[in-house]
This record gives sequence, structure tokens and C-alpha cells, in this order.
Amino acid sequence: MAARTAAPALARLVVVGVGLIGGSCALALREAGVVREVIGVGRTRENLDTACARGIIDRGVVLADDWPRECATADVVLIATPVAQFTALFAAVAPTLGPDTVVTDAGSTKLGVIAAARAALGARFGAFVPGHPIAGTEHTGAAAAFPTLFADRNVIVTPLPETDRGAVERVRALWQACGAKVRELSPERHDAIFAAVSHLPHVLAFALVAELAARPDAAAYFDFAASGFRDFTRIAGSSPEMWRDIAVANREPLLAEIDAYMRALAAARARVAAADGAGLAAMFERASVARRRWGARFAAPVDDSR
Amino acid sequence: MAARTAAPALARLVVVGVGLIGGSCALALREAGVVREVIGVGRTRENLDTACARGIIDRGVVLADDWPRECATADVVLIATPVAQFTALFAAVAPTLGPDTVVTDAGSTKLGVIAAARAALGARFGAFVPGHPIAGTEHTGAAAAFPTLFADRNVIVTPLPETDRGAVERVRALWQACGAKVRELSPERHDAIFAAVSHLPHVLAFALVAELAARPDAAAYFDFAASGFRDFTRIAGSSPEMWRDIAVANREPLLAEIDAYMRALAAARARVAAADGAGLAAMFERASVARRRWGARFAAPVDDSR
Repeated sequence: MAARTAAPALARLVVVGVGLIGGSCALALREAGVVREVIGVGRTRENLDTACARGIIDRGVVLADDWPRECATADVVLIATPVAQFTALFAAVAPTLGPDTVVTDAGSTKLGVIAAARAALGARFGAFVPGHPIAGTEHTGAAAAFPTLFADRNVIVTPLPETDRGAVERVRALWQACGAKVRELSPERHDAIFAAVSHLPHVLAFALVAELAARPDAAAYFDFAASGFRDFTRIAGSSPEMWRDIAVANREPLLAEIDAYMRALAAARARVAAADGAGLAAMFERASVARRRWGARFAAPVDDSR
Repeated sequence: MAARTAAPALARLVVVGVGLIGGSCALALREAGVVREVIGVGRTRENLDTACARGIIDRGVVLADDWPRECATADVVLIATPVAQFTALFAAVAPTLGPDTVVTDAGSTKLGVIAAARAALGARFGAFVPGHPIAGTEHTGAAAAFPTLFADRNVIVTPLPETDRGAVERVRALWQACGAKVRELSPERHDAIFAAVSHLPHVLAFALVAELAARPDAAAYFDFAASGFRDFTRIAGSSPEMWRDIAVANREPLLAEIDAYMRALAAARARVAAADGAGLAAMFERASVARRRWGARFAAPVDDSR
């Protein structure tokens, strides 16, 4: 932890959902010395106790208690729960939001989150900065948090014309202090891109493992699965609740991606059925070249072996 | 390299296809001190020169030259090329095979390979031990070989009633000297299992990346893809030629797996379309539990970061 002489930029941060993302953000800000007090809010006392014991938060408040009053004097409220909870959380926090409090989130979908925030926050909607840190592992909870999760990772913010630019800058500074690169997209573009490169692969991996696991002789298949299967299915170990919420919230772009994928897979199937080696080789070659080019560009891997 | 006083168990090994698999096997046997001379056979002089320079082989013979005569005095001939070449290779080697020479292979499919061997080897078919080392990375060629590729990995052998048991034991000893565990399966069961846990995931990953790469705005998608995408698509960087041959050779089991998968994906799609959160959560939960259980059991990862 670097010693800082300047006062922390954030006197009080409230993290709602002290899991992998929220917890890692708090840890990173602490290590950077830019936050004085972190209040954790969550469903279970047990996870909050873990977060306290690990030094992630100073105090924990369960959702059943009066957590919104903690937000009145917060500089930033970071909502990092599964996205289906956002509507209730925005509604709870709206009445007590301090005049200078900025609300942001870590949800993987943005249009639905924005609609929920707009409905609940009303005149204070400008204080909400939609955000999405592009980092994670398949592990969950405060126990899985680590301070370098966001190092050199992208954080997408999708501000709207009504969004207060000062609020955007505060959120930008927060993620930069975590080591992240902050980039802006429109919420529509965000949802379309992540449906393709994140939500679809998760659904595909979940579907594969669920189908195998349902077989009477599943054990024989898992017994011989090796490193290709391991990497292909790593994301199938992810939180079912988080991904249920994402799949539902982003369902229109996700359905479009599933349909495009099913067409591509049907074309591949036809080539296999026809023993069309040349057609298969052309498809595999296009993929292999693109994947190698991308892989060479992709930076150091995140610590997802935890 | 451990110093050995005993004579090497293999006086001469011929490796046809000195790539990741064949090259790594030769390196492992050399490090174990169990082979005296390794002859490499391949399509290009360039790759054979690389293999010589790296100490993988003692000599290289291109396929255009008279490589079958090298097999007359070999203890083992390991065929480790893409499987579509096997028919021609078996036919070439059959007339000159030494009386004590054992032929084995490293192909990812077994029924097709066995049919090709039976047709070409005739009365000497008993000297052929069908094999499949379950190891690999997405990299290819002699330059990608490394001696620990097979450490603690499975090697499947699928001997038939006609297969000489002494030949099986020689092949078993060869792979055990590489650090691998040797297991037996029927060829039918092998092809069915690996269609599900290896061939299908490869086709799925190739299809995903090929579909994305074909979009006019592909760069924007790749730009935001992160570690989940990285692991899910790692195998899409694999050799198009090798996977073309596997997909064609094992097409019946693979088609059955593609069809089962398309049904599973269609069911997932229906749940997304209906915003059926409970149904999605149940599917994701089944996958997540199974994947975590399997992941906990899976041994140390192979060095596939190379």
C-alpha cells in the first residue's frame, strides 16, 4: 500500500453487494489510499463479516436494516449486486440520496439498469453514472475479492445526455485509482457488444455443461475431459444468479446473438454432415487466424486461477 | 536429463509428423533416457530442421523421400500427423514394416484410424496399437513441442482383439516413460466420449470466432472481449487442418453431439425469450455445480500459456 499524504478523494464509499466486483473495487481503492471509509451493504451478515475480516469494508449493514441512510453522506454509492436487484435498490436509495452523492453500478447490462435508475431516481437521475467493469473470475463473494482485479482492465461507462459530467469524472477517477482504463460507449452499443463477446459465450458454456451433466453416464465424459474442455467451460462455473439476471435483462441483444450463432452452427453442422473438409477448413482457418491475432494483442491474463 | 546406465528400451523410434504431439513425445522419451535414435518424418524440411536444431530428432526425412525403409528396423513408428493422412501413411509403411516393429498413432479419432490400418496393414494389423494422448495446446509444429506435455495426462489406447498384447505393452511403456497415465477404452466409446468433450467444444469455439470475425464491425467486438472470451475461445486458435480431419473422421458421433447441443441451446433460447429466470437459473446452476465439482478434481493445468 502506497503511503499518501493527501486526503483521500473519497471520504465515504458505500458498496452495495460486497462480492468479487464490489469487494475488489474497495480493496483496490484502499490500496491506492483514495478512500477513508467503506460501508458494505449486503444480504447476509456472513459475507459482510468476511468482508470486514479481510479489511474490505469498515462496517457492514444488511439490506434488512436501514442502509439507505448510509448513502446520505456518501461520495459514491457503488451497486454491485446481480442486476435484477437494481430496481429495488434504486428505489430504496432515492429518498435519502445526499445532494453531492454519486451513484454508479457494476452491472453487465446497461439499458435495463438505466431504465430502472431513471424511474427510481427521477430528478436525481443525473447523479447516476452507468458503469461496467470488464473483469471477473468464476468465483463469487467477498472471499474471492482481490485488489488487482481491475489492473489494466477496461471499465465501460455509458453516460447519457442528462448525466452530470462531474459525476462521470468522479466515477472515472475511482476506476482509474483501481488501475483500470475507463472507456465510454452508448448503452445500446454496450449491450450489443457484450451480448456477443460475453453473454453469449456464458450461455453456450452453461448449455454445454448442463447438457453433459444431465446424462446418465455423465461421469465417464467428465472423466476424460481435458484442458480444452477446462478452458472452454471455465465460465460455466460462474454465478447462476448473476447470469440469470444478465440473460433476462439483456435478452433482446442476447436472442439476436443466439440466433446468429445457431445459424453459424447449423452451417458448420451441414459441412460436417457433408464431410466438406474444404468448407470446414475455411471456417476453422478464419477463426484460428482471428483468434491468434486477437490473442497476441490481449494483455496479460487476469488472475483467474484463484 | 537423468543419466541412465541401462540400455535404452527403444533403439529406434520413427516419428511421422514432428509437431506438438510427436515432437513432445520424442523430447519426453529422450529426457527419460529410454530411446537411442529418433528419426523424424514430415512434409517440410523446414520443420524437420527445427526439430533437429531443438534436439527432438537425430535425423529428418521428408515424406517425398524413402521414409518407409526407416521403419524396417524401428521398434516403434509413431504416426502423429492430422488423421486424414493416415491411410496413405499406413499404405506406405506396410510393405517395409520390420517383423518386430510396432506401429501406433496419436490421432484424436479411433474408428476411422483403425479401419485405415486394418485395410493397409493386412496380416500385420496386430502390430498396430491405436492411441490418443489427451494433451495439447493450440500451438503447432516442432517449435511448440515440450517434454512435459504428457506429464500426468491420460493416453487412451483402444486395442482390438487382434492387437498383439506385447505391442500394447510396448506402447504403454512408451507413454508411461513420458509421464502419462495409460487407459484403455473401446474405440467406439473413445470416439463417442471425445466427440462430446473435445470435438464438439472445438467446433463450437471455431463457429463463434468465425461468425464474429466475419462481421463488418468485428474489430469493435474483439476490442472489448475479455478473459471469459479468451478462455472460451482459446481452442479456436487450434490447427484448422487437424480439426478439419477430426471433424470429418468422427462425423457421426460429432453430428450426434451437435444435435444434442442444438437442442440444449434451443431450450436455453426459449427460456431467455420467455424471460424465464427460474428456468435459466436451474440450467445455469446444474452447469455451475457440475463444472465446479469437475474443476476441483482436475489436476494441475497443462502448460498451455506457451
